[in-house]
Amino acid sequence: MKEIYLDNSATTKVCSQAVEKMTEMMTEHYGNPSSLHRKGYEAQKELEDVRKTVADFLSAEKEEIYFTSGGTEGNNTAVFGAVGALKRRGNRIVTTSTEHSSVIESVQKLEKDGFEVVYIDSADELTNVITKDTILVSIMAVNNETGLINPIEKVKKMIEKVNSPALFHVDAVQAFGKIPLKPKKWGIDILTASSHKIHGPKGAGILYLRRGARIVPLHYGGEQERKIRPGTEPLPNICGMGAAIKALPDMSEEMRFMRELNIYCREKLKDIPNVHINSDESCLPYILNFSVIGIKSETMLHDLERQEIYISSGSACAKGKKSHVLKAMGLSDEIINSALRVSFSRYNEKSDIDELVKAVANANNTLAKTR
Amino acid sequence: MKEIYLDNSATTKVCSQAVEKMTEMMTEHYGNPSSLHRKGYEAQKELEDVRKTVADFLSAEKEEIYFTSGGTEGNNTAVFGAVGALKRRGNRIVTTSTEHSSVIESVQKLEKDGFEVVYIDSADELTNVITKDTILVSIMAVNNETGLINPIEKVKKMIEKVNSPALFHVDAVQAFGKIPLKPKKWGIDILTASSHKIHGPKGAGILYLRRGARIVPLHYGGEQERKIRPGTEPLPNICGMGAAIKALPDMSEEMRFMRELNIYCREKLKDIPNVHINSDESCLPYILNFSVIGIKSETMLHDLERQEIYISSGSACAKGKKSHVLKAMGLSDEIINSALRVSFSRYNEKSDIDELVKAVANANNTLAKTR
Repeated sequence: MKEIYLDNSATTKVCSQAVEKMTEMMTEHYGNPSSLHRKGYEAQKELEDVRKTVADFLSAEKEEIYFTSGGTEGNNTAVFGAVGALKRRGNRIVTTSTEHSSVIESVQKLEKDGFEVVYIDSADELTNVITKDTILVSIMAVNNETGLINPIEKVKKMIEKVNSPALFHVDAVQAFGKIPLKPKKWGIDILTASSHKIHGPKGAGILYLRRGARIVPLHYGGEQERKIRPGTEPLPNICGMGAAIKALPDMSEEMRFMRELNIYCREKLKDIPNVHINSDESCLPYILNFSVIGIKSETMLHDLERQEIYISSGSACAKGKKSHVLKAMGLSDEIINSALRVSFSRYNEKSDIDELVKAVANANNTLAKTR
Repeated sequence: MKEIYLDNSATTKVCSQAVEKMTEMMTEHYGNPSSLHRKGYEAQKELEDVRKTVADFLSAEKEEIYFTSGGTEGNNTAVFGAVGALKRRGNRIVTTSTEHSSVIESVQKLEKDGFEVVYIDSADELTNVITKDTILVSIMAVNNETGLINPIEKVKKMIEKVNSPALFHVDAVQAFGKIPLKPKKWGIDILTASSHKIHGPKGAGILYLRRGARIVPLHYGGEQERKIRPGTEPLPNICGMGAAIKALPDMSEEMRFMRELNIYCREKLKDIPNVHINSDESCLPYILNFSVIGIKSETMLHDLERQEIYISSGSACAKGKKSHVLKAMGLSDEIINSALRVSFSRYNEKSDIDELVKAVANANNTLAKTR
């Protein structure tokens, strides 16, 4: 049986370019970038090469790019770092109710500490709640469960309009490498991304911090990453991430392919009785959320895995808990309890979708009696 | 010219077993350990296998082992986590003046926040400063610059004697894999270690947290690592670290070899005029700190690198700053400014030392005029 991996928003298979680069880093350029000798210098040069790759990719400056251990650390650094730096200037934090848990749980912690957190449903609502004492606006670019795209390019103007000192953070974990991101042009202060969603290894991430924007660090130690993220850099991972970025196909070409896959999948699923599509057509085509009413997500997931088809019931990080994202969308319990997320990568093909749809249709018949 | 790498306390070459395991993890078991399908389960199983390996290695329970992104994150989590959990029970933190910057700078941050930090020179002095309102004692097992071994097995009794609620943290980054560590037996509450000092990859670390001990997390997000360290686990790195632990030679045999190398190097260096040995013979033999009086550390370091001999002027994380460790030892500026650290691994041989000593002796002659 061929393995059909359709859970690329949870994590991706590491591309061969990344694996090769990492092997080189571990066996040849294994020095510590902080070491003062040539072995250290070589390692540091590799690190700076990736910084340049990332900066170019984001149309940013090299000095605005910091490396982290991943998306969660990046989002934590952004949220706590911004609030730590601006806490004397205000008390309000605005975010959406559909953020990833690494943002939601961070602002919940701050709420306990006395900050006021205002949750909005989409970036468009920001204008109603942004105030002069708002110190952080954190809005994800693409939702990880539905693929919903937030109009982040409009946010800065709303912040400026009320003369708010707020730093604007964008969790771009699901957007990076998939849609063009122009943090400088869009007035984003902090943008975070992760390696393992773009066929790089787990254990590396990116934090863009606009020149002039100041945050306090979450970690204390050496001088690495200009004290924004001290600790020996996970160099093989960072270089693997660099190789993965270089290996990314042309974004608009890949987007065309993803649209094709998405529409193909969407249409075929619609023909199955009891299927409800939860991601509307304006969502990022890499992600398609749907429900087979009456069949619990987990039941379907395990039925599919027996056929080596791997999809998700929502965010991997939530590990089976009821989706706060679909809840925030106002969907019924019936739909939420049977929600499934399919997420594509460039390694998928139409035949994968044929197999998926066939399996879902079969499950809908055979599991129907358990309804 | 053969490369002679004698900077193994800064970082090590990744062993082939680790590289192989990581490649397997990235190309085959690339699933997200939090995913509910088989691909996720496979990844989780690998993660739990490493947890078992680490637990066995530390004579601890599997449930007491947490994975981090490395030594700095581990030390930060230990220090801030312990103080966060116990801040209502006291205000005093005791540590040594020779800790790694990831501990020193963390307690300095807490000092700014109003905690009282007492610095001692060695674990033996703890008994004079430990009080009922001490909430954290953080003492490294082996110093990274000199190899000084702290009698950490005596500490718990001193804490208990005064009925202190203090959590006892041991930074074991330089000790792990080199000397036997028995956290349970010795009453250690938190022990931290790093992968890249033992021929594992950069970007993974270990946090031992005694069953029953409670700390608050530094990061917020998913359920990973039982919320002590949320975020997708750096799985290739963790599995690489597991392979590196399995590949460690018998500790007492390797210690014999290291003693041989250390004594050989020590004796040969002593014959060079102006050499002052800073690590006494009771230090961990993996590390040998010495000074060539009158020749600045950096000058010597760069002279040696031209001959492809790589050593350090102190901690890589300090990047050329004056050593706070040697200063705390009461050494003269003359000695500190010319200090060099040689650190061995199992990949070194006696002939490496012959080359080093020859090069140092030459430098001592040729660079002498610049004195």
